[in-house]
Amino acid sequence: MSIRKPKKLLNDPRDVPEEQLDGLIAACHGTMKRVDGFSAVVRDEIPDGKVVVLIGGGSGHEPMFAGYVGQGLADASALGEIFTSPSPDIIMAGVQAAERGKGVLFVYGNYAGDNMNFDIAAELLEEEGIPSRTIRVNDDIAIAKMGDRRGVAGDMMVLKIAGAAAEQMKSLDEVHRLAVKANDNTRSMGVALSACSLPLNDGFNFELADDELELGMGIHGEQGVRRQKMARADEIVAEIIERLCADLPFVAGDRVALLINNLGGSTVTELLIANRKANEMLTEKGIIIHDTLIGSYCTSQEMSGYSITLFKLDDELQALYDAPCHSFAWRK
Amino acid sequence: MSIRKPKKLLNDPRDVPEEQLDGLIAACHGTMKRVDGFSAVVRDEIPDGKVVVLIGGGSGHEPMFAGYVGQGLADASALGEIFTSPSPDIIMAGVQAAERGKGVLFVYGNYAGDNMNFDIAAELLEEEGIPSRTIRVNDDIAIAKMGDRRGVAGDMMVLKIAGAAAEQMKSLDEVHRLAVKANDNTRSMGVALSACSLPLNDGFNFELADDELELGMGIHGEQGVRRQKMARADEIVAEIIERLCADLPFVAGDRVALLINNLGGSTVTELLIANRKANEMLTEKGIIIHDTLIGSYCTSQEMSGYSITLFKLDDELQALYDAPCHSFAWRK
Repeated sequence: MSIRKPKKLLNDPRDVPEEQLDGLIAACHGTMKRVDGFSAVVRDEIPDGKVVVLIGGGSGHEPMFAGYVGQGLADASALGEIFTSPSPDIIMAGVQAAERGKGVLFVYGNYAGDNMNFDIAAELLEEEGIPSRTIRVNDDIAIAKMGDRRGVAGDMMVLKIAGAAAEQMKSLDEVHRLAVKANDNTRSMGVALSACSLPLNDGFNFELADDELELGMGIHGEQGVRRQKMARADEIVAEIIERLCADLPFVAGDRVALLINNLGGSTVTELLIANRKANEMLTEKGIIIHDTLIGSYCTSQEMSGYSITLFKLDDELQALYDAPCHSFAWRK
Repeated sequence: MSIRKPKKLLNDPRDVPEEQLDGLIAACHGTMKRVDGFSAVVRDEIPDGKVVVLIGGGSGHEPMFAGYVGQGLADASALGEIFTSPSPDIIMAGVQAAERGKGVLFVYGNYAGDNMNFDIAAELLEEEGIPSRTIRVNDDIAIAKMGDRRGVAGDMMVLKIAGAAAEQMKSLDEVHRLAVKANDNTRSMGVALSACSLPLNDGFNFELADDELELGMGIHGEQGVRRQKMARADEIVAEIIERLCADLPFVAGDRVALLINNLGGSTVTELLIANRKANEMLTEKGIIIHDTLIGSYCTSQEMSGYSITLFKLDDELQALYDAPCHSFAWRK
């Protein structure tokens, strides 16, 4: 068992969510700004008459969620404390700063706290006469039952489609329809080699033995499908790809975007080695890889490991996927 | 003291350099290809009559070096084993695959092994009548004596300028002049919280106590300027920024590109918090931040920590910095 203490270069741990958001805003050079008094950010220039896309969730998954605010992606983001849902007032502050008269689409991962708080915000919006729709991303196949599935890195695929559709000035119903389709077409699974720690805690949120990994672990350390002895990368990647392909299913002739997402502490070297095997397997299966993303897109603090996401594209989704976007975390 | 074993998801550790390169090439979807039989890659389409820019060095710093092959950056890359210089035959294979009749610029970090092997390659090129010039990047101010300074993340700034100049079909002398200027204008310093491990070794290449950090550590674990007790992020960032600014010097009115580079195991959260303080200090000093890059650009396996780079821009350098580029690791 590792005897290891969390070790990060921070100031007061209580200030982490605020300070990281300040650092992100500074890095964006005016393309997003803070909503005064709230842990929410809003895109600098939002066209009138545009459906607003708001993405949100707990802090600690940087660059998710606020790193995706920008042209062709999210118009606003509402952030909670680390691994904690944003409260309805934060969500409402984000909406009010961004709203342009055509309604709001909420995009967030399917977690009980987020579901509750965003639903309250949706009710408050209804009282104000502002239409809203909701997408609860549920790409994580580590959970068998569809309705219980969590949202993990697949959030960004759903956001990409919703953001591109909204940028084209489509209606709320149409943006929602496309986002539902994107969510239906997205599947992810992760593997963890080590735990993550929260800045306010002294220890890690779980432990993994030196010779063990956990398949299917969630982005807050939620239990996965299996703990097992460390194995070859190719074995683990092969199992994840097989599980993903069986689930949707993804079959010969399908086109996909492939994402190898660093959960935090994995080396870029490991991500590239995972991509080698994923690419080989998908190619063997006759699945066409339209685009490949590799990097830290949705993290779990210093957790070592990665998730693999497959997003199935048809012509409609591919056109939106290929549309330009400009944010801290994703530029096309 | 941490009692911790390296834990990575790999196949045969001896295959790491080859497999990560395969994974990178797969991720690039045809924009780069391998030079048959060598650990070198070459950009897919290189215009005739273009000066060729080749970047190289040891593997293990992914996405450096091969991740920067593409339009407006490097035309080829030669890679050694992990933390080991590429041999002259690998460098020559890269040159021969890329060369278009106008000569070659070598860009690499100032390390004894790289210096020797690239100098041998330059002699071989001279025998073949192919002109070459060399830039030994030496941005790391942790070493006092300028000639002994190492190249770290600043490699990418020098490459950006050389690559943009070559893309504009400038002559070898002109590309070299601009790259020299870029190197003269770049300064970096890092901080490490934990060690890195090499896939073929059982342990880490050094140890840091649980309550210690090392300021100025190099990207292979070379000794820095000081070990000290863990401190607040703002104190460490402030010291790095003060040292960088005093060294060039960077003064009020200067324009810079700012890079916060993850050495591997730091969380994105920590990088953003570092950027907050760097931004605040540079702004206070009257230094204009033209662009900010934050992420894993030049890593040291799982080493926790980051480096900060300042690159001073004048009008000529800024125009080249702002030019489009397209590679795995950097797109503008």
